[in-house]
Amino acid sequence: MSDQWKTVFVTGGAGYIGSHCVVELLECGYNVVAIDNFANSVTEDSGESSALKRVEKITGKKVTFYNCDLINKEKLEEIFNKQKIDCVIHFAAIKAVGESMQVPLHYYRNNVIGTINLLEVMKAAGCFQLVFSSSCTVYGEPDSLPITENHPTGNITNVYGRTKYFIEEMLKDISRAEKSWNIISLRYFNPVGAHPSGLIGEDPTKAFANLMPYIAQVAIGHKPELTIFGGDYPTEDGTGIRDYIHVMDLASGHVAALSALKKQHLRLRTYNLGTGKGVSVLELVKTFERVTGTTVPYVIQDRREGDIVSMYANASLAREELGWSTKYNVEEMCKDFWKWQTMNPSGYRTPLKNGNS
Amino acid sequence: MSDQWKTVFVTGGAGYIGSHCVVELLECGYNVVAIDNFANSVTEDSGESSALKRVEKITGKKVTFYNCDLINKEKLEEIFNKQKIDCVIHFAAIKAVGESMQVPLHYYRNNVIGTINLLEVMKAAGCFQLVFSSSCTVYGEPDSLPITENHPTGNITNVYGRTKYFIEEMLKDISRAEKSWNIISLRYFNPVGAHPSGLIGEDPTKAFANLMPYIAQVAIGHKPELTIFGGDYPTEDGTGIRDYIHVMDLASGHVAALSALKKQHLRLRTYNLGTGKGVSVLELVKTFERVTGTTVPYVIQDRREGDIVSMYANASLAREELGWSTKYNVEEMCKDFWKWQTMNPSGYRTPLKNGNS
Repeated sequence: MSDQWKTVFVTGGAGYIGSHCVVELLECGYNVVAIDNFANSVTEDSGESSALKRVEKITGKKVTFYNCDLINKEKLEEIFNKQKIDCVIHFAAIKAVGESMQVPLHYYRNNVIGTINLLEVMKAAGCFQLVFSSSCTVYGEPDSLPITENHPTGNITNVYGRTKYFIEEMLKDISRAEKSWNIISLRYFNPVGAHPSGLIGEDPTKAFANLMPYIAQVAIGHKPELTIFGGDYPTEDGTGIRDYIHVMDLASGHVAALSALKKQHLRLRTYNLGTGKGVSVLELVKTFERVTGTTVPYVIQDRREGDIVSMYANASLAREELGWSTKYNVEEMCKDFWKWQTMNPSGYRTPLKNGNS
Repeated sequence: MSDQWKTVFVTGGAGYIGSHCVVELLECGYNVVAIDNFANSVTEDSGESSALKRVEKITGKKVTFYNCDLINKEKLEEIFNKQKIDCVIHFAAIKAVGESMQVPLHYYRNNVIGTINLLEVMKAAGCFQLVFSSSCTVYGEPDSLPITENHPTGNITNVYGRTKYFIEEMLKDISRAEKSWNIISLRYFNPVGAHPSGLIGEDPTKAFANLMPYIAQVAIGHKPELTIFGGDYPTEDGTGIRDYIHVMDLASGHVAALSALKKQHLRLRTYNLGTGKGVSVLELVKTFERVTGTTVPYVIQDRREGDIVSMYANASLAREELGWSTKYNVEEMCKDFWKWQTMNPSGYRTPLKNGNS
């Protein structure tokens, strides 16, 4: 492996996790060529991405950007012909679990066909270095906790998760068949928080199905109360448990993965990215209230069918092999999300104030 | 459901199972619009299919044919716009297990993307009636025998089987999401034999990895001996056991599936198509020798990694719900294969004799 890697191709670079990772990449000295089709976001204005403009503001560096859908294989090939790309981080995906059950073919086309196109274009260009955004969803209902990477996968209850699982299986197959591939698959637990600057974050107008944006919408007064599904689970306070991870920790996990790919030819390795610490819904609500000084009224309703009681990572493999660990605690996740939300009540449609420009 | 269904769109209509099914469909009074890209065959001559010409000879009826790859969604849309299609039987797939491990992306593109395109074009055309060619490969190593349709799927050891499994999962997802779909998925066991006329069959120059074509190549003297992998399995004679099914029985299974879709709106049903009878490698060899009057020398070698010991169907669900059962025994499978092979030593490249025309 060469230390000369400079240019990272980032799919979904204008998205929530993608944009935070681009900040981290630029600050570590990489060049970034990003693409996005804005399928998950409202940030598209005049063909340019507000998120990436804000990334440039944060870092003082430029991002090469193309508005490109992975379904458009010809355009993807053109970009690979024009740019010298050393490695790829593949975030691009549509990701709304509920929606995925309504329009499964749309999810299979975007996520699975998009990835097949990307892998074929990479191969044709002789680029075999890949970091893939997977998800703890591939584990389904856990057999045991904390979940290690060798927990069985595949028993998945939603289409979004199935697209991630199919892609993981394809990556296993290509890495078995073709020795050139050097792939790290990262299984994210529950990404929350925002860049500490408050300039980028998860668009609250799109991410409403996720817990922290929902809490914040209640805290800010846009919603009267938070509905918690299930208060009688076999957990300490009866609510479900998740492994929340600050998006900046996720971002640094990707840079650590790139360093690992540079150092040795791994063929394919898979790592959990989580804190290893389970946090209940009520704990998150209480922490959010304490950190932000707000009140978040809630009601507890019946369990939702298909919801998993408790899910948190054993994150020791990434610590040992990638030398990566999380730096942000739940307080910081709440604080940074709140800063982003209060500075940008309409997400990326909020004009930047002078003080930020 | 209407009894007015006339036109069946058959993907992979020039292939081994497809061509036999087209014979059956024509003889049952259906119109057939067939497509093929000849990816598995050597029958392409001047853009026309020898197999389908022979089908027309057998039946005295015409097939509407397009040379079309499912990857070419625009062409597929044109065909659906031009033809009034009532239902679809989807055979088209590349299917060499060994090859699938070498070129996985090629298999995912052809089989999975091809199917997504087909489903999208069907939906846009308002055609929701589908019979899908699945395979007993989706069961992986059996937990119990005979295998029923509710045996777990997904623990699959090869890429070809994984493409069938992914498609089955996608079909489950679309039939859950969209009530219009009316789908039967047929899990084939081991198709062998040929049309009793000897005019169509599995191209022996392409199907060499399968047992019966291999036996026939030895019987005809093209190969000195048959290599049997594993003679010490926990079976009566120590060799592996499969559920061989005559291709004409498979064909009639598809017509039975169409009738079932006509009769009621099933959303999605899955059926095994097998005889329910396990036959060992040595039994098949001995039967072949007896029926054809040939000698098939063999040697027994070590087991092959990944080979399944024993696999046969519980076929009672198809019997009960489709009113279908197999009519051909192992002797007829051997006899019909041998007739095809001796009449067509070079498969479809063998010129038809006058007596056949």
